[in-house]
Amino acid sequence: MSQSLQTFPHWGRKIIAIGRNYAEHAKELGNAVPTAPFFFLKPTSSYALSSAKMPTIEVPKGSNVHHEVELAVIIDKPGRDITAHSAMSHVGGYALAIDATARDLQDEAKKAGKPWSTAKGFDTFTPIGDLIPTGMIPDPNNLTLWLKVNGELKQNGPTSDMLFKIPQLIEYVSSITTLERGDVILTGTPAGVGKMSPGDVVDCGVKTTGASADLFRMQFRVVERPGFGVFGTGRV
Amino acid sequence: MSQSLQTFPHWGRKIIAIGRNYAEHAKELGNAVPTAPFFFLKPTSSYALSSAKMPTIEVPKGSNVHHEVELAVIIDKPGRDITAHSAMSHVGGYALAIDATARDLQDEAKKAGKPWSTAKGFDTFTPIGDLIPTGMIPDPNNLTLWLKVNGELKQNGPTSDMLFKIPQLIEYVSSITTLERGDVILTGTPAGVGKMSPGDVVDCGVKTTGASADLFRMQFRVVERPGFGVFGTGRV
Ligand SMILES: [Mg+2]
Ligand SMILES: [Mg+2]
Ligand SMILES: [Mg+2]
Repeated sequence: MSQSLQTFPHWGRKIIAIGRNYAEHAKELGNAVPTAPFFFLKPTSSYALSSAKMPTIEVPKGSNVHHEVELAVIIDKPGRDITAHSAMSHVGGYALAIDATARDLQDEAKKAGKPWSTAKGFDTFTPIGDLIPTGMIPDPNNLTLWLKVNGELKQNGPTSDMLFKIPQLIEYVSSITTLERGDVILTGTPAGVGKMSPGDVVDCGVKTTGASADLFRMQFRVVERPGFGVFGTGRV
Repeated sequence: MSQSLQTFPHWGRKIIAIGRNYAEHAKELGNAVPTAPFFFLKPTSSYALSSAKMPTIEVPKGSNVHHEVELAVIIDKPGRDITAHSAMSHVGGYALAIDATARDLQDEAKKAGKPWSTAKGFDTFTPIGDLIPTGMIPDPNNLTLWLKVNGELKQNGPTSDMLFKIPQLIEYVSSITTLERGDVILTGTPAGVGKMSPGDVVDCGVKTTGASADLFRMQFRVVERPGFGVFGTGRV
């Protein structure tokens, strides 16, 4: 008996995040515009639900954590070596997401040739909204993603700017790793990424391009990460 | 009702792999010996079970895929900000594993400052054995890991050479990401890594140091990855 796809953050097994899939974002960080897609993994323990009582993003003390608003694709039908042609039949829905990133740790990792997993993997670093059924999004290339920090618009970009479209992303990813039901592909962020600090309020939304109403919107409060972990105390 | 920990590869949600945790292995690849632990993520879809009818490692065509035999730690009790002092109470067992690595893709990623996820994440890139109960391993620092390719001994190293011991690894990892039941920590590989080619037979085992019998051993056949994925055809 399979679980409802709506509860994917509770049992889905992987988050595949595409890097630099919007040219303007690649450029704003000083990176080349990619000629092929690439991805990194985030742990599913990094989900922070917009439906929580107090949706919260936790920032490790002293870290420069950036917001990256993204369209999440939720896989329904599993597959491997999926062709771009049949890719959309594997999609069970969409969601609004933030790919929170400790930019300082990512910059260090990039310089050292080390993995991005820590920079991208802290608890609460993948804020995610409710499943949006495919019926509500007939064309995922005709959406606009926006994000505000303390009411100020920071990101506002159309998914039509994606360098690699969803069918190509599914083809690419599934040529490396089998996609399972409940897996999530984060499709990259438009330009305008920037810092989130404790005390900030982050609002974001997704709408059909040109429409006034959002298909989904969510709000998170930013706090300093509590606890006395090795990372937090600077012991490592 | 919780599932039996023995079936962790079927439902566990993350694989955290520690890099360069044996000094001799760090050196053999020309890397500095780390002063702090670091990790990367592998998708759980990369598990290949030693209990399968035909245990197989699939090598993408033309790729230089290396074996890294490792001790896997299986988490039973979940936790966050776990102290080294209490860490061992979270361990539900161990397993023998191989952290298969497309060294060519990893070298490219390191040079380009890009994530390691593809190099480490192909289907079948995490061969894994049966759960070994903690009662069979009173001291995980007193084990020897070995690996043969076509009968020739390639890796043979004691877990006492780990730079960061299991309690420290659990403390470090859980200070970043919550550990859940069924999660796996791969604890790094001793020296002697090398290429696996289609047609090779890979044997590996784990034993108490000085003992003649293995606690667990497993065998995998290496084949070329079938299918017509984007990666396999060189289209990307
Ligand atoms: Mg990585
Ligand atoms: Mg992103
Ligand atoms: Mg390894």
